[in-house]
This record gives sequence, C-alpha cells and structure tokens, in this order.
Amino acid sequence: MRIASFQHQQQPGYGVVADAGIRPAPPAFVARFPDLRSVLAAGALPELAAAVQGSAPLDMQALQFSMPIPDPARIICVGMNYLEHIHEMGRKRPAYPSLFMRFTDTMVGHGQPILRPRISTEYDYEGELAVVIGRKARYLSEAEVPDYIAGYCCFLDGSVRDWQNHTTQFGPGKNFPASGSCGPWLVTADELPDLSARRLQTRVNGETLQSTTFSDLCFKVPQIVAYCSGFCQLNPGDIIATGTPSGVGFARKPPRWLKAGDRVEVEIDGIGVLANTVVDEA
Amino acid sequence: MRIASFQHQQQPGYGVVADAGIRPAPPAFVARFPDLRSVLAAGALPELAAAVQGSAPLDMQALQFSMPIPDPARIICVGMNYLEHIHEMGRKRPAYPSLFMRFTDTMVGHGQPILRPRISTEYDYEGELAVVIGRKARYLSEAEVPDYIAGYCCFLDGSVRDWQNHTTQFGPGKNFPASGSCGPWLVTADELPDLSARRLQTRVNGETLQSTTFSDLCFKVPQIVAYCSGFCQLNPGDIIATGTPSGVGFARKPPRWLKAGDRVEVEIDGIGVLANTVVDEA
Repeated sequence: MRIASFQHQQQPGYGVVADAGIRPAPPAFVARFPDLRSVLAAGALPELAAAVQGSAPLDMQALQFSMPIPDPARIICVGMNYLEHIHEMGRKRPAYPSLFMRFTDTMVGHGQPILRPRISTEYDYEGELAVVIGRKARYLSEAEVPDYIAGYCCFLDGSVRDWQNHTTQFGPGKNFPASGSCGPWLVTADELPDLSARRLQTRVNGETLQSTTFSDLCFKVPQIVAYCSGFCQLNPGDIIATGTPSGVGFARKPPRWLKAGDRVEVEIDGIGVLANTVVDEA
Repeated sequence: MRIASFQHQQQPGYGVVADAGIRPAPPAFVARFPDLRSVLAAGALPELAAAVQGSAPLDMQALQFSMPIPDPARIICVGMNYLEHIHEMGRKRPAYPSLFMRFTDTMVGHGQPILRPRISTEYDYEGELAVVIGRKARYLSEAEVPDYIAGYCCFLDGSVRDWQNHTTQFGPGKNFPASGSCGPWLVTADELPDLSARRLQTRVNGETLQSTTFSDLCFKVPQIVAYCSGFCQLNPGDIIATGTPSGVGFARKPPRWLKAGDRVEVEIDGIGVLANTVVDEA
C-alpha cells in the first residue's frame, strides 16, 4: 500500500495511492485519525485500506503533496553510509553509524519548491532511502527491527556544504529551512520485503548523478534502526534517513552545486520518484 | 520576571514566581495562551504580569516543575564553548560554534528524575546557560540579538560519553530520554542585562565541579544566536544552550560518572538552582 499526505482545497488529508489517483481517507476516518502518524500509532493501516474503498480518487495534479508524515517528531539521518561515498569523502569505514538530526521545517513534500539559502552557493543534493517507524521501539535487536518498520520513502537530504563544514558537526548545513524533501508517499514494508537489490538514483535535470543499490550500504536498515533505538525512544512516524551514495555535487570536480530551476529527482525502485525544483530564497 | 511551567493537580500551568510561591496564570488567561511558548509568541509577557496579580500563590512543593517551555520545537546546543573546557578536551579554539540538537523528550524540568541509561555507565553532567528565543528570528546581526531573547534558564546537557564518542557526531550521546534538564524557570532578559560577570556552577551532591563566569565563553550569546539564525528560522520558545565550562566528569582523572542517587545542581547567579537526582533506568 502507498499512502500519501497532502493538502487539497486548503485542507490537510491523506489517502491511498491507486491507478486513478489518490483515494482519500473519508471524513469520519480523519476525525478518528487526523494524520498518517496517528494511523500508524493506532496500528490502523488495515482499517485505512478498507475505509478508502468508497472514496472517489483525487487527481494528483489537483493536490499539493506534504511529507508522508507531515510533522514527524524526529528525523534522524545517517551520514557516510555507502562504501563508495565513504571513499569519495576521503573517510574510513566507521564502526558506528554517524548520525545527525534535521528539524521538521527543513523538509517539504514531493513537488514543493526547495530553497537554496541566500547566504550560500554550496547547496547540494543527497538522495536517500528513508525508513518510517511504525511502532514504539526501544532497545531493539536487529532481528526485531522489521516488525517496527511501517514503510519507506525517498528522501532528499539537501545539504549546505560550507555550513556543514564549519565544524565537525554536520547539523547547521543540514537544517536550512525547506532544504530537503521526503516522499512522494509511504510505501508499506510488505511491498519491499528485500531491499538489497533495489536501486536508488538521484537525477538533476534528468542527468543521473547518483546510482546505487542498497547492497552498498555500510550499515543496513536493521543495524541503523537498532542503533537508534539504543539511544532514543522511537515512535510511530519517526523518520530515519539511511545516508547517501557516492556522486554528490560536493565531491565532483568541479563541484556541481544546485541552482535555481534545477529539478532534483530521487527515485527508488518500488517506491517512486520524489521530485522538487530549486528556487532561490528571496 | 521569573516564569515557571508546571503540573499542578494533574493539570499543566504556568505562572510568575513570587516570594510566597508561584502565582499561576488564571484560567481565562490560559484559555487564550495555553502555555508559556504561546505567551512569548503573542508578546504577552506584560499581560501575564498583570493577569497573575489576583492569583493566590501556589506552594512550590505542591507542584511538579516542567521545562519552562514544556515542548520546545527546537533545542540547539553548543559544544566546546568555554576556553578552559576547549583546552581540557584537547581541542583548539574554533572558528564557528559547534552545534548539535537535542530532542524534546531528552529533557525534564527542575526536580524531576534524570535517567542514567541502562546501556552505559558513562553518564556525565554539563551545566550550561540556556537562552530562550522570544520572537521569530532569521539572519540576525549580533547587535539585533538582544531584542530577540525572551530570557534565560539553567540547563543540564546530560551526556552519555561512550555514545557521544562513537563517531565525530555528538548527537547520540546527547539524546537519551530524560538525560537532561532545563529550568527551574525562565528569567526574563531585562533582569540580566549584563551576563558576563554572572557565575555558573555545577554541583554534584554539594561538591562544586564546574565554576565559571560567562566571560570565559568563546562564542558569546549574541554570536551564538546570530549564527543559529543564519541556518534556521528561530521561533518563540526555541532554546539554545550555550555550552559547558571545564570540569566535566569525563575529563577528570579518574572520570567522575553520575550514578543513581546523585543530586546534580546547576546554579546561575540571577537565575536560580536547577536540581535533579539521577535514577537508574529500569
């Protein structure tokens, strides 16, 4: 099942992606579960699937996508997690996942503009796989992790490199408003039983600049989620982005920085295409 | 003015600290402004001061303190920001503030238990000054910063050192649930026109382990806030902790780790004492 969150006629909503469009959760269902996070928290995905059967599909062109979880409490990102990218950044294979956080307002949904801040020209793409947590989780073993994953999304970990490199801590370069995106929708985990052979691609204006399969991940999804559950209480709707592969703009010679008008696409086999266009901050 | 947030008879509230106790915001005021953050956002501190005049003081022993901003959208922390601490950690004077983020659920209020996680023995104190943002702020100059500060609190940036040192990124060691605290209340900025001579002390079981004045800060408050406003949109109620001075447990020989029953106090002249007792996670 693919579940999108959106604004339609100035109202927030969510629904199930179908061939003909998005079948929205009906008002009575939304009254019980105001957003997708609350559906996950209640374990109500099967009810959602049943509830949307009577809904007329909405044309995707007639709505604005939000992040699949519009207001996640937690966005944790892994840095340096593909072996080729680790090599391209000149680093060694790490013993633990390298983590930083993004504030919610750094992220937009599919199709929304992403902002190059006016104080930097070093705005860069990082295409990633994001995991959405489905149940409260703490101190998980790797074997337990699959039961706690609601599903997956594409993720653009937009990065302002000069600010990322001011100190050893990545946070400032990863937290400019509307510099990243997540979507286009949540694909439930049952649709992606084996990620390893799936391909992630990042394109800018149609040119493929990152391309990998998840077999190149240094820390796999179960390791990452188990590690995060060691230091924090994960809750339904929390998002963990799993790192970017080689091919980022920063590591190219010359560097390939994003500029206004660039269309950035993150595509993952079995999930879809997350697309956003860069605009310059006013 | 000193403003505390609390739970009283299972209800959240906030009020102004007076000699006799805390004068709570009356119900009609709370109906308009449900928490201190919304008071700040509305610029309604003068109205709050007037509104509490008719309230009978609550005995501080009869309530549980929350964080002054119970659910801040953003907690940004500066690492390595006192010159003596920079030296004790074996580092050089930095060119930019080194920043990381804490999730809200890592923090508790004055008097609440703080948790040593069961998966680490390296739980450490870091006493700090925290700034609370009073107005929406972006791209501030240092000179503009004072107009955007609502006030100050004591802050305990409790740190799990082994997890902090797994990689270059501090985040995991700084985000264990209920490992830090903030309070005991917000002291409005007008009461602290010059911070430089104020003293910060951290005590464990009455023994003073950190003691400094803010003249030892590498990056001063205006520099820190201006820098943060460069990469993110600051909003009323956001909290910025300004770093810890020398004397942390990690740097002692032998290390001085916190254990169950330890009472940690962070005191700042002109603000008060933030006290919490360590308990072991079940």
